[in-house]
Amino acid sequence: MTEIPKEDENEIQILCIPDLIIKKRDGKQLTKKEIEFFIRCVTEGSIQPAQLGAMLMVIYIQELSEVEVTHLTQAMTSSGEILKWPQEWRGSIVDKHSTGGVGDKTSIILAPALAACGCKVPMVSGRGLGFTGGTLDKLESIPGFKTSLTNEEMVESLDEVGCCIVGQTANLVPADKIMYSTRDVTGTADSLSLIAASIISKKAAEQLDALVLDVKTGLGASMKTEHGSQELAHMMVNIGKCLGVKTVAFLTDMNSPLGMAVGNSLEIIECLGALHGEGVPDLIDLVIQLGAQLLMDCGKARDKNEATNRLTEVLNNGSAAEKFCAMMKKQGVDPDLANKLCLKGSDIRELLPRSKFKTELKSQKSGYVQRIDAMTCALVSNKLGAGRDKTDDQINFGVGLEILFSVGQKIKEGDSWIRVHHDEDVLSPVLEQLLVDGLSVDSVPVSNLRASRVIDIIT
Amino acid sequence: MTEIPKEDENEIQILCIPDLIIKKRDGKQLTKKEIEFFIRCVTEGSIQPAQLGAMLMVIYIQELSEVEVTHLTQAMTSSGEILKWPQEWRGSIVDKHSTGGVGDKTSIILAPALAACGCKVPMVSGRGLGFTGGTLDKLESIPGFKTSLTNEEMVESLDEVGCCIVGQTANLVPADKIMYSTRDVTGTADSLSLIAASIISKKAAEQLDALVLDVKTGLGASMKTEHGSQELAHMMVNIGKCLGVKTVAFLTDMNSPLGMAVGNSLEIIECLGALHGEGVPDLIDLVIQLGAQLLMDCGKARDKNEATNRLTEVLNNGSAAEKFCAMMKKQGVDPDLANKLCLKGSDIRELLPRSKFKTELKSQKSGYVQRIDAMTCALVSNKLGAGRDKTDDQINFGVGLEILFSVGQKIKEGDSWIRVHHDEDVLSPVLEQLLVDGLSVDSVPVSNLRASRVIDIIT
Repeated sequence: MTEIPKEDENEIQILCIPDLIIKKRDGKQLTKKEIEFFIRCVTEGSIQPAQLGAMLMVIYIQELSEVEVTHLTQAMTSSGEILKWPQEWRGSIVDKHSTGGVGDKTSIILAPALAACGCKVPMVSGRGLGFTGGTLDKLESIPGFKTSLTNEEMVESLDEVGCCIVGQTANLVPADKIMYSTRDVTGTADSLSLIAASIISKKAAEQLDALVLDVKTGLGASMKTEHGSQELAHMMVNIGKCLGVKTVAFLTDMNSPLGMAVGNSLEIIECLGALHGEGVPDLIDLVIQLGAQLLMDCGKARDKNEATNRLTEVLNNGSAAEKFCAMMKKQGVDPDLANKLCLKGSDIRELLPRSKFKTELKSQKSGYVQRIDAMTCALVSNKLGAGRDKTDDQINFGVGLEILFSVGQKIKEGDSWIRVHHDEDVLSPVLEQLLVDGLSVDSVPVSNLRASRVIDIIT
Repeated sequence: MTEIPKEDENEIQILCIPDLIIKKRDGKQLTKKEIEFFIRCVTEGSIQPAQLGAMLMVIYIQELSEVEVTHLTQAMTSSGEILKWPQEWRGSIVDKHSTGGVGDKTSIILAPALAACGCKVPMVSGRGLGFTGGTLDKLESIPGFKTSLTNEEMVESLDEVGCCIVGQTANLVPADKIMYSTRDVTGTADSLSLIAASIISKKAAEQLDALVLDVKTGLGASMKTEHGSQELAHMMVNIGKCLGVKTVAFLTDMNSPLGMAVGNSLEIIECLGALHGEGVPDLIDLVIQLGAQLLMDCGKARDKNEATNRLTEVLNNGSAAEKFCAMMKKQGVDPDLANKLCLKGSDIRELLPRSKFKTELKSQKSGYVQRIDAMTCALVSNKLGAGRDKTDDQINFGVGLEILFSVGQKIKEGDSWIRVHHDEDVLSPVLEQLLVDGLSVDSVPVSNLRASRVIDIIT
């Protein structure tokens, strides 16, 4: 057992993991030193896996106080490398993090758009697991795209382009990597304290000036209830601030998929459209709202109006698309391919992985689209091969869904409402039935139709 | 992940460990099949250590219902070998189990005494860890004593002698071995459900007809409060009965050490005296009460009076000592040594490991002995080398304590009240001070002096 002497009011105490587990088990508060010791044992690997499982469960059931979560986050941040940036960038370094949704491709549009507005965006992203798609998987559907950069390569990319989207390096918050994989198998994944610490520790290690959090809520989010999402959002905003990062959280609706596409290359195609000012309203609105907050927080815009105009401009005048093009080149994509992908109006479908077959499903009713179940779409998309059930599952980049109507729109019986991209010659009747059940149409208009995905902003 | 199909009302369900952890975490009851699946995964090693840690913590915090504990115990019992006995012994196979105390050597006296009364006693015992001494360690202070027997060797020993005292074989309740060592490091050792399942599963695998449980309570017990001990006792009695073993629990006082000796060879010496009818009253009373219950439960005595007389007789007429002598021979002790050890009046101290030095401490006050702190005695004895802090610590068989007065007795200032057997040339002042503080003497007699260690009997 690793033991370190602990100095507390001149008193030397010997720390050991079982005592810490028991202390928290019995409802007591862990001190900063105790939490640091726990995280050191996790990072060094001197904690036994069974002890880590027990500790995570104790944290799940007893919950951590805000002080404890802050100490936990801080200790996790310090468990590995802290990214370093040139002094002259100070004030401009921003990032966005989403808790994960269906069809959520905002990062891929937002990072280059912010870069086009003069921000430095060292976006560290994740892979898909379970129902959530991963930004890195989507980007890897672009032939040649490389998601692992060293800190030096990131600096170069930020210097020349202004943004990069990469995976977590081995040394960035190693304690989180260990805890994350253990949470997954021990029924402790959805602990608010552990989610918050995991997210904020990684963002703090990026040494950001401002961070915006997109906390999803609804059928297609890990947090199904608004109450839980609110609680998580508040917790993360507080920890972020305690760790010296300007942090604002957006509570956003994730009952239906965001945008039109679900699936890797299909989402890239949608992003390329949006980067040319041709995004669907719900997606573009969310990108702009999240981005505007960051522009204000890092002083690149005086108010929301100015920030919104600036972002709208870079999406419409092609400069966001240019940034994306440059970023692709920096991250390993062949310059010719990158240029072709970013050429407005070119048929980019041929340049990206495609499924062998497409099947359109027709609405069986006329009326107003009431609901397109995000979780159903995620499930079907995964079954088609677009996602992972286990971390080592292979991804099929070409398959997925194109949703041709959005909630609130009028639809007629016989209209194709969804295009399924699949590799099996016949779409499985089970998946077809799932999709049919995932659409609901009624003769009356949607009563509480939201103009925006944003439900609340927590500052 | 190990998955088995589960049939429940014709419905096929796939079981997996994270789901079971989450189910219990959220306060739901686990079914028999789910608990069996959990124990199968533990036994096969397909459960991840982190999952076992989390599951044990969930069980600790949420507790198991009586039905769940019974299913758990049953599944654990079935996880390995079930001991087999000749048909003609049916009805006579008995055992006693203690939750562990300081100076508790009752097993070593009780097993041969019961054998002398015609019982078959396949006693499976444990080693000391932390403050509790272990029956096996005490027996191993007898040169040559072997505590590992196969089922066949146990049958032979029970056939020829009537008793044996052995360690848990590799195949007896393997699930418990895994869970036990994990509980120790995950802060889940003192879960009532897990303690009860651990104890009763091993006893059920011994295929007993009757079992008596000695549940210790007080300063020198793992259960400090009478309430907790009562709860544990009731739980074990109920599970034992459900598993088809006549089970009775004795709640006994463990505030001061049992008998006079604490330490391995010192306790063997005390046992040899007791086997010749020369035991101190508290020890002999407890041995006889526990034994009498078993004699009644297996029909070897009609009532408590007859049972008590029978046990007193075998302790006084040398037949219990003869059984112990025969058992030692069966378990590897040189016959000459065994005979010498059991010869009444011989100086057996020379035949067993001895410490290099002895120090007597004197009472600083005259009056009545109010308290001899069991936990202090255990701690000092361990520090002298008689016990283990970790499972692989070496034991010093010769060191320990002889307590020369008992609670309630009159003592004079200057009387030696304890004899410390130690191997360092000077007894450490820290240990001496601990012992001095562990004795309390007052001018008034002890008001609530118990005639017996037995506080309650739970049937």
